Amino acid sequence: MIKVSVLGATGYAGIELVRLLTGHPAVAVTRLVSKSYAGQPLARVYPGFKNVLDITLEPLDVESAAADSDVIFTALPHGASKEIIPLLLGKNARVIDFSGDYRYNSAEVYEKWYGQPHSSPELLKQSVYGLCELHREEIARARLVGNPGCYTTCSILALAPLLAKKMIRADGVIIDAKSGVTGAGRTAALDYSFCECTENTRAYKIAAHRHTSEIEQELSLLAGEEIVLSFTPHLIPLKRGILATCYADLTAPRTAGEVLAVFKEYYKDEYFIRVYDEGDLPETNHVAGSNFVDIGLAVDARLNRVIVVACLDNIIKGAAGQAVQSMNIMFGLPETTGIGNAAFYL
Amino acid sequence: MIKVSVLGATGYAGIELVRLLTGHPAVAVTRLVSKSYAGQPLARVYPGFKNVLDITLEPLDVESAAADSDVIFTALPHGASKEIIPLLLGKNARVIDFSGDYRYNSAEVYEKWYGQPHSSPELLKQSVYGLCELHREEIARARLVGNPGCYTTCSILALAPLLAKKMIRADGVIIDAKSGVTGAGRTAALDYSFCECTENTRAYKIAAHRHTSEIEQELSLLAGEEIVLSFTPHLIPLKRGILATCYADLTAPRTAGEVLAVFKEYYKDEYFIRVYDEGDLPETNHVAGSNFVDIGLAVDARLNRVIVVACLDNIIKGAAGQAVQSMNIMFGLPETTGIGNAAFYL
Amino acid sequence: MIKVSVLGATGYAGIELVRLLTGHPAVAVTRLVSKSYAGQPLARVYPGFKNVLDITLEPLDVESAAADSDVIFTALPHGASKEIIPLLLGKNARVIDFSGDYRYNSAEVYEKWYGQPHSSPELLKQSVYGLCELHREEIARARLVGNPGCYTTCSILALAPLLAKKMIRADGVIIDAKSGVTGAGRTAALDYSFCECTENTRAYKIAAHRHTSEIEQELSLLAGEEIVLSFTPHLIPLKRGILATCYADLTAPRTAGEVLAVFKEYYKDEYFIRVYDEGDLPETNHVAGSNFVDIGLAVDARLNRVIVVACLDNIIKGAAGQAVQSMNIMFGLPETTGIGNAAFYL
Amino acid sequence: MIKVSVLGATGYAGIELVRLLTGHPAVAVTRLVSKSYAGQPLARVYPGFKNVLDITLEPLDVESAAADSDVIFTALPHGASKEIIPLLLGKNARVIDFSGDYRYNSAEVYEKWYGQPHSSPELLKQSVYGLCELHREEIARARLVGNPGCYTTCSILALAPLLAKKMIRADGVIIDAKSGVTGAGRTAALDYSFCECTENTRAYKIAAHRHTSEIEQELSLLAGEEIVLSFTPHLIPLKRGILATCYADLTAPRTAGEVLAVFKEYYKDEYFIRVYDEGDLPETNHVAGSNFVDIGLAVDARLNRVIVVACLDNIIKGAAGQAVQSMNIMFGLPETTGIGNAAFYL
Repeated sequence: MIKVSVLGATGYAGIELVRLLTGHPAVAVTRLVSKSYAGQPLARVYPGFKNVLDITLEPLDVESAAADSDVIFTALPHGASKEIIPLLLGKNARVIDFSGDYRYNSAEVYEKWYGQPHSSPELLKQSVYGLCELHREEIARARLVGNPGCYTTCSILALAPLLAKKMIRADGVIIDAKSGVTGAGRTAALDYSFCECTENTRAYKIAAHRHTSEIEQELSLLAGEEIVLSFTPHLIPLKRGILATCYADLTAPRTAGEVLAVFKEYYKDEYFIRVYDEGDLPETNHVAGSNFVDIGLAVDARLNRVIVVACLDNIIKGAAGQAVQSMNIMFGLPETTGIGNAAFYL
Repeated sequence: MIKVSVLGATGYAGIELVRLLTGHPAVAVTRLVSKSYAGQPLARVYPGFKNVLDITLEPLDVESAAADSDVIFTALPHGASKEIIPLLLGKNARVIDFSGDYRYNSAEVYEKWYGQPHSSPELLKQSVYGLCELHREEIARARLVGNPGCYTTCSILALAPLLAKKMIRADGVIIDAKSGVTGAGRTAALDYSFCECTENTRAYKIAAHRHTSEIEQELSLLAGEEIVLSFTPHLIPLKRGILATCYADLTAPRTAGEVLAVFKEYYKDEYFIRVYDEGDLPETNHVAGSNFVDIGLAVDARLNRVIVVACLDNIIKGAAGQAVQSMNIMFGLPETTGIGNAAFYL
Repeated sequence: MIKVSVLGATGYAGIELVRLLTGHPAVAVTRLVSKSYAGQPLARVYPGFKNVLDITLEPLDVESAAADSDVIFTALPHGASKEIIPLLLGKNARVIDFSGDYRYNSAEVYEKWYGQPHSSPELLKQSVYGLCELHREEIARARLVGNPGCYTTCSILALAPLLAKKMIRADGVIIDAKSGVTGAGRTAALDYSFCECTENTRAYKIAAHRHTSEIEQELSLLAGEEIVLSFTPHLIPLKRGILATCYADLTAPRTAGEVLAVFKEYYKDEYFIRVYDEGDLPETNHVAGSNFVDIGLAVDARLNRVIVVACLDNIIKGAAGQAVQSMNIMFGLPETTGIGNAAFYL
Repeated sequence: MIKVSVLGATGYAGIELVRLLTGHPAVAVTRLVSKSYAGQPLARVYPGFKNVLDITLEPLDVESAAADSDVIFTALPHGASKEIIPLLLGKNARVIDFSGDYRYNSAEVYEKWYGQPHSSPELLKQSVYGLCELHREEIARARLVGNPGCYTTCSILALAPLLAKKMIRADGVIIDAKSGVTGAGRTAALDYSFCECTENTRAYKIAAHRHTSEIEQELSLLAGEEIVLSFTPHLIPLKRGILATCYADLTAPRTAGEVLAVFKEYYKDEYFIRVYDEGDLPETNHVAGSNFVDIGLAVDARLNRVIVVACLDNIIKGAAGQAVQSMNIMFGLPETTGIGNAAFYL
């Protein structure tokens, strides 16, 4: 059994991770750390876990966590991870971090988007961007994985085949993404109150969302040239789900059938990526509750533009599920272990 | 592996059952029957199952189903089950039926509430009411189980300890239940359209809902006397969940702590029934996505009245999950097999 | 034109009141007071008002408010009203208060339910309970009106005819109420965040909600004897609406038609109270956005019990709309002025 | 008083129109026609109108409607309008049609997008596209107005200043729109059922939605050259609201402040169009329930791209409200009459 610790177990990404881990046949949950609720039973904070995982939340003890865990997931509030991770890596534990701090290859790009110097740039050399379908071999060897942001996996996978196969222009890429409210995390802010979110939708951080830099990093690698794109996030009134609508100009006229054939070939060995047939489009409830990324597309023949629609569950494949998938890779398990289930649908 | 067939696999209860069965380690899904979609891949109707369960839906073939299934779940539109079930029981298969037809002990009670004679009253003698916590031994031996209605399990378990221990009066019991919309099934009716349900709530079938008769049947057994009660269902704008608020007059003055002690004792060996502490009350998102029934209560000292609040997921413990639990009992598996998970919560 | 000031204009009840007042043909909004946002344009806090009411929020100036207002609405956080109201009453202004402080006839009852002595019990002698249909004449003369709580108007009107006509027993009355989340007010608490409220429902303050005391006060007056009842509030995932399901035992066997005839007679002159026909039941979207109270009922013949279902919009007839109705009465306007519209429905 | 008839009063657009008309001080609702419910009181279909508008629905009588109405609104199922409208225009009545049939200048464009020849192309010469802010003078004189589609007003107004002032390139315009479910109309289809829509979002009719042709027609007029663009509609789980995110490449580098100044100047006399300040963005709950169109924007300096976000209520400014606004123009009333209110917000 893989001994697992979760630091930041009571935020939304953290508790979703705990939920997945309790259903994972090869995991022994060793320690759940929560600064806010240290000393309390998990079931006092999240009654749904009573009888399933009767464990007491602990305060952070870096020494113990590093010493007796095979893998440590860090799902801490922004800024907290980078203080702790260098310490956690001291022993044998491998670390999968949910923050943005170890997603980058370049400390300069990080600094530009996060507004501060990177606190441990040397770790950036060894950290691996945890998008499993693209960095499988590196993840397998990694001691530190930067688990991707919730919008980024969706956007990157939606466009990867097109850039890898040079079927779209490098300029003119636009990603318009719609996310559920769990993406904001477990928060008491007025903006995320029920009455402010239900029956409402809004765009935010236009041309300013940090995930833009991650998406550009990965797509530039795939394209072999620098990609600069527009990324616009929106909040929609549901809990789980991201739908990204991605626009790009084709380099040559193609039908939707032709483009889909390229996607199906590119992803043919990927369990978690399902490419739809021509005429079909994904909906978030096809993936919510699962680790799948569903992709459909259409071609606007008048403009020779491809419009790709990709959906995933922002707290599973957009966070906790992908983290478990990385763990499975690291420990040589079938990638679907514990996360291969169908969507909730209802 | 238990060979399982599901008849009526594409309604909401049916597909939720399929979802649970795909995650069940001891089940081999042999056949999924859908009259509406026979011949189509399941994933064409429910894309969430692609890669998880790539199976083709079949038309009904009673002979084959009866011959090569260990257990057959019948989740058919109202009225269809009773035509088929007598035929299915001809071989070795055991049947778990989701309709109301085999939940009754008395053909007279059935006739009164369903407005027609029972088509196979002799089967009522052998059918068992599938509320696992109350009829475990009978279910273990049963060839035919009538899986309880969605509101009834919640209501019955909320009041069982009070009646079994004669702590409440037999008269004056009131159950006010609130249910999510999946309870209406997969339907194109205007009343269940998004615009008619969201931001709306309504009561319906006051003093006329069939589940009243099931609740009375079981509570009368527990009480050792005839119980006649008021049951009022309501529709609330969410997908999964039932919350039942149950009112009863205590036979002697008691504190909430005393009553809770009785509940905790009564259910102490039950994994799926979680009794809350004094001052805590369940919410449906503590149970939605799981097979748990959560119970809390308060005592109104001014009136010596106990108010019990019970929550469950109407399509899991209220339908598909309880059916799997019955199957586990029938086949000697731990009852939690495939259904012991925590709630989705998010 | 009636010169109106609103103290506490930026909470949910306050802003809903402002919305109604901007559509009122006989009102001149003189002053909107908000401690949190004093000095800011209303439209900066609530962009929906831009071009409709371009007014700047003011800090509280009791002297000015009392001096140049005909009526002052106080929709302040709990506890703040009673400090200010005695001062506001010094001049000619009439006051309509949204808090619980002036709803009571008895300082003892207030003290029992609010846990503190009443700060101005002498004002309780002159304050009038602002349920317009029951206290019309008193409201017309009142200088101080205690606007009823959101659940109470619904519950009281649902049962008033039955008690006034002595058709139900005084004991055994149970009110099971379901409310939308605007009832909690404009708050950043985790319990009212989107992710905690959507797809969720819960009961709270069982046998302990203050509205119980108001309901009992008014129903006891109507019945001519002391009424003690059970009141259970629940939160359901919608913004506007309360549905109260009220159970009572009939003193003699009656059909639903007979009981409805009594309701229709009792409320025959009331524009805002609509009694449904036999077989029809109200839904909250029939009233949300309007000042109507819709009432339907059924009789459980087996138990000789009447079940009344009443719906209203918790922030209109449950708060702001009733306050405007009181103002209309006070100033001799048709009661429907500014609030006679149909529900939003969509 | 303007004598008004509504044909198709019981669909969603129709009933919303009825709601607005009952609050309009200069309108006498003469006749409400509903084929499905002819002979029934309106309040039987929509209980929210009881006491507000106690009128009986009528079957269609073209002669009477044409003879005694000043204006006739036709909100009929697709395809039904064009049969009737030529007959309605025979007398003095002016017609405002909600279908797509009279929105076009060109019968060829209509035929291309609707797949059939136009049944009365000669009427297209006199019909006016009912986007009030752009065609005010023509509407004032029009006998037949084609009320714009729900997405189109939002999209057109979002981009009009940029094209009129030649600040963006004619190519590369992308509109990504998100709409609430009332846009689908009052329908019993499974796709619009509560369980299929809540907690779900989807894109549809990519590069194929008819509104594309309307948007292109109007923007081409404004630009003085042919505009061909991408328009992608999405369904989001709320009832009222459209948010359109519009992407375009600036012809010269500009700051958001500079672009906003152009918008504010262009719309400075428009009550219903509110342009936000730099850094602020609209949300649909700022406009839902009102006739306002709120516009905000950002500039992506890295790409010299402007991203405009526009919101409106799809059944008010996207349908019924704009129709009333056109009526106000036609009859020389202040445009805000009956529709100048603030958003519901809650």
